[in-house]
Amino acid sequence: MKFAVLASDGAARRGRLEFARGTVETPAFMPVGTCGTVKAMTPEELVDIGTEIVLGNTFHLWLRPGLEVIAAHQGLHRFMHWQRPILTDSGGFQVFSLAKLRRLSEAGVHFRSPVDGAEVFLSPEESMRIQRVLGSDVAMQFDECTPYPAGETQARASMELSLRWAVRSRDAYRDGPDGAPPPGVLFGIVQGGMYRALRAASWEGLAKLDLPGHAIGGLAVGEPEEERLRVLEETVPLMPAGRPRYLMGVGRPQDIVAAVARGIDMFDCVMPTRHARNGHLFTSEGVLNIRNAGHARDSSPVDAACDCYTCRHYSRAYLRHLDQAREILGSRLNTIHNLHFYQALMRDIRDAIAASRFGAWRADFERRTARTVAEPVA
Amino acid sequence: MKFAVLASDGAARRGRLEFARGTVETPAFMPVGTCGTVKAMTPEELVDIGTEIVLGNTFHLWLRPGLEVIAAHQGLHRFMHWQRPILTDSGGFQVFSLAKLRRLSEAGVHFRSPVDGAEVFLSPEESMRIQRVLGSDVAMQFDECTPYPAGETQARASMELSLRWAVRSRDAYRDGPDGAPPPGVLFGIVQGGMYRALRAASWEGLAKLDLPGHAIGGLAVGEPEEERLRVLEETVPLMPAGRPRYLMGVGRPQDIVAAVARGIDMFDCVMPTRHARNGHLFTSEGVLNIRNAGHARDSSPVDAACDCYTCRHYSRAYLRHLDQAREILGSRLNTIHNLHFYQALMRDIRDAIAASRFGAWRADFERRTARTVAEPVA
Repeated sequence: MKFAVLASDGAARRGRLEFARGTVETPAFMPVGTCGTVKAMTPEELVDIGTEIVLGNTFHLWLRPGLEVIAAHQGLHRFMHWQRPILTDSGGFQVFSLAKLRRLSEAGVHFRSPVDGAEVFLSPEESMRIQRVLGSDVAMQFDECTPYPAGETQARASMELSLRWAVRSRDAYRDGPDGAPPPGVLFGIVQGGMYRALRAASWEGLAKLDLPGHAIGGLAVGEPEEERLRVLEETVPLMPAGRPRYLMGVGRPQDIVAAVARGIDMFDCVMPTRHARNGHLFTSEGVLNIRNAGHARDSSPVDAACDCYTCRHYSRAYLRHLDQAREILGSRLNTIHNLHFYQALMRDIRDAIAASRFGAWRADFERRTARTVAEPVA
Repeated sequence: MKFAVLASDGAARRGRLEFARGTVETPAFMPVGTCGTVKAMTPEELVDIGTEIVLGNTFHLWLRPGLEVIAAHQGLHRFMHWQRPILTDSGGFQVFSLAKLRRLSEAGVHFRSPVDGAEVFLSPEESMRIQRVLGSDVAMQFDECTPYPAGETQARASMELSLRWAVRSRDAYRDGPDGAPPPGVLFGIVQGGMYRALRAASWEGLAKLDLPGHAIGGLAVGEPEEERLRVLEETVPLMPAGRPRYLMGVGRPQDIVAAVARGIDMFDCVMPTRHARNGHLFTSEGVLNIRNAGHARDSSPVDAACDCYTCRHYSRAYLRHLDQAREILGSRLNTIHNLHFYQALMRDIRDAIAASRFGAWRADFERRTARTVAEPVA
């Protein structure tokens, strides 16, 4: 993987990640393919709307269909028919948010599988083994996502554990049991909760590992927006300018813009896909709820300014009807629209930074967002 | 609408239907678009696998989203973004199979809507009004689908009612309330249960209306296969060779082949789409159940002989995984495969008739089918 910053505007950066499987223009948004599919979408449709990288979930794929199945396809790319880069998370976040009866120790986490109730164990070494088998272009270190709120003692212990796990992740990822080189690169994760000193200590520890990219974890876990932005402002400047910075699990369009303004290059979030299936559609004028009865006879598109497949061919009334009738095509068309919205947003952001007009673009974007947050259009 | 028989081989015919909206090669299979969408598919995907006409359901569309909504889109074609021909049923079949508390009279049928419980009334005149608003290229007369089994007295009364409704359908379809010409053509429906004399009487009555096409109704309602084939053999020869013959609601691949051999030109059935969503996939070697654990690690396609999008890019293991995880993409890929199988079957049938080798092709097809019906492949 190579990374280059092509332009910057304030703290915002316009960059490019190059992988053997393809190029990713940054700031980039990664749609989430939890179970080996970005829900409702084919890979061709994802490419069509400008997707260059997707995120896969180690935890879900490990439990179902299981690694033997994916290994029989030589990895996740062939299994899901996606030929461009894949970033996989480490499974840690899902263990802590989904699994019941978990038991944390220095070694790792014992828990019961939500798929079949089996007793399973995830550790830095196991997470690296899984991500090697998946064949991820970017693997993430195994970490503990510090909950919010957390006192300083708890946040410190959690951060220090994640640091020790980072070392074990690095070693296990590099030295696979089969002697083969790793299939991609490993990113570290800065933790430390909402505490400036802990974030700094986390970064100091991670920096020694000299990893090619870094994420900021432990945000988008329920903290107020000002807290998140403060942590970003305190943490990002510590991180090397020449390596990509990934803000995990963020977020709403306005959250992405605010984080780009603070120097973030990569994002992932289930929001566009999940919102789509619930009938919440992103538009240049704000979020539109397609279930609203006001759309029942409306033959106009979701967003007249949008050139996605859905807006070119279907009306609000048709999408509302599909949603009411619980038709699969409704989830499809809504997902196409929302992911197109996100990828178009990222293109706008990149263009604005490249043209040194990100500040003005952002001010305009925030004016529009502020209005629509206060007054949902429909 | 124009219809021409281009070739025949025994009773089997290779024909062509021409509509203002496009050509339909016959024998033709019409995927079912119950609620204004062929479930899980876009129109482009349907065209891609060779679909030339789809079926829409008057009953479902009338109750939801309702005619005002579809009228606001100038009809069903624009509402669902399907530019090729549409045939709509009359709603009669669904009234009798889905609605509770129905009350039948000479005038029509009162029943409670399964969507919202409202008291509604469907009659030949109302069915024609609906199908005119939908803008169907082929509308079907309003009829009563005689149940199976039915005694001769019951079957005769039902058939005679359908004949009287045929006359009212013809009049109402021709003379719309708005004075505008009808948007397409009207087909009549031969009823009469399993009784040769009643089928003949039904045909005699219908023939006087001089409609441009005809369906055989009241089959595929639970009768034994031999009964169905006998009724076809007794009824089809009565019908004029120069007009299309449509066997409603049929069926399995082997049922279609047997009916083509008896002179049928058009078919519709929910089987390929519904089976797909339940993981039953049609192959040249028989039906494959993708839920079978034997497919869990199988990286081969559903059917190595198939060139559909699904078989070109995805494995049995992946499809099984999507089914287990209840992923929308699973329903999509399975539906693409099954509809492709049906359209490829129809192409094979047409080619065999055109080349005067339908008999030999059919014998080979039935050999394969007999084997796989006895021994499901998986």
